[in-house]
Amino acid sequence: MHLDRDQKEALRKRLRRAEGQVAAVGRMIEEDKYCVDVLMQVRAAMAALGKVGQIVLENHLDTCVSAAFQADDDAERQAKIRELMDVFAQYGNFGTR
Amino acid sequence: MHLDRDQKEALRKRLRRAEGQVAAVGRMIEEDKYCVDVLMQVRAAMAALGKVGQIVLENHLDTCVSAAFQADDDAERQAKIRELMDVFAQYGNFGTR
Amino acid sequence: MHLDRDQKEALRKRLRRAEGQVAAVGRMIEEDKYCVDVLMQVRAAMAALGKVGQIVLENHLDTCVSAAFQADDDAERQAKIRELMDVFAQYGNFGTR
Amino acid sequence: MHLDRDQKEALRKRLRRAEGQVAAVGRMIEEDKYCVDVLMQVRAAMAALGKVGQIVLENHLDTCVSAAFQADDDAERQAKIRELMDVFAQYGNFGTR
Repeated sequence: MHLDRDQKEALRKRLRRAEGQVAAVGRMIEEDKYCVDVLMQVRAAMAALGKVGQIVLENHLDTCVSAAFQADDDAERQAKIRELMDVFAQYGNFGTR
Repeated sequence: MHLDRDQKEALRKRLRRAEGQVAAVGRMIEEDKYCVDVLMQVRAAMAALGKVGQIVLENHLDTCVSAAFQADDDAERQAKIRELMDVFAQYGNFGTR
Repeated sequence: MHLDRDQKEALRKRLRRAEGQVAAVGRMIEEDKYCVDVLMQVRAAMAALGKVGQIVLENHLDTCVSAAFQADDDAERQAKIRELMDVFAQYGNFGTR
Repeated sequence: MHLDRDQKEALRKRLRRAEGQVAAVGRMIEEDKYCVDVLMQVRAAMAALGKVGQIVLENHLDTCVSAAFQADDDAERQAKIRELMDVFAQYGNFGTR
């Protein structure tokens, strides 16, 4: 990854928030909270992780993908496109996984 | 939540796995791993949390929803249906969020 | 499905809207519209279908699932729970498909 | 969009398949098929549309995004990145919509 110091700190902060959300799920399970509340908390933790993913993806487009597309190497460009499509399939709602 | 001892322990175990996956994201960021690998690790952590959500939902259907549907209380039954639809909308790919 | 006349007409209307959204995708492709606009139109068509799915699911909970849970037949109740979990896995973002 | 004749025909074929899947939903509703079967058919139609989206996205990366990244125009490059992030957010499971 090609993050400058501030970007890395922002990402750490996001990840700590996600870790906090996950820890909250654990507490709710121990305290036998209502199932639907636990489900919504799990979803909040997933969303916090999703935000981390978005930041990493945007940085990837801005650095690795840009560099590969600007270089005169079509094989490398196609490799980057395939990678992006894999990421899309993993995260995406193409309903084709 | 209405989990017996074994169910609760199984859920704890799942959550610890999710926490481990999240921690792995942190290490990868610190070690400047390749973006796409980090993205796939974030997705794995989300999937581990998703599994926790599935267990909680199945238990909810088996306990709270069953009890509400078996009781002779239509208002309570409708409330449970609305809750399930909210959970579906939050987790679901109805594409309508 | 157990839809009264009005519910069925409402569902038909939703489905016609989805069909219209899908047809719009076709036109945009023929007219060589900008890719991102086509992608957003495809997403709108998926969302329209998602809405059809939500209506069917809510009706299912209100009729088939309720009847099964109210009957004194645990095997039938468990079968309905498994079905709901399958639907969740297909539509859901448990990230475990 | 920048599709050659074969690519366009392949996309038309995909879209016709999606239209067929949507029409099948309509028939199942008229024939009062079992709700869960209808839900799975709706999901199949969404997946067929998702496949159309994937083809459009891959073509977009290969043409518009590549061209923008190769041109010496940072504003245009950033605009394309923002667009891709929007598409990701619409389709993606970042859980942040």
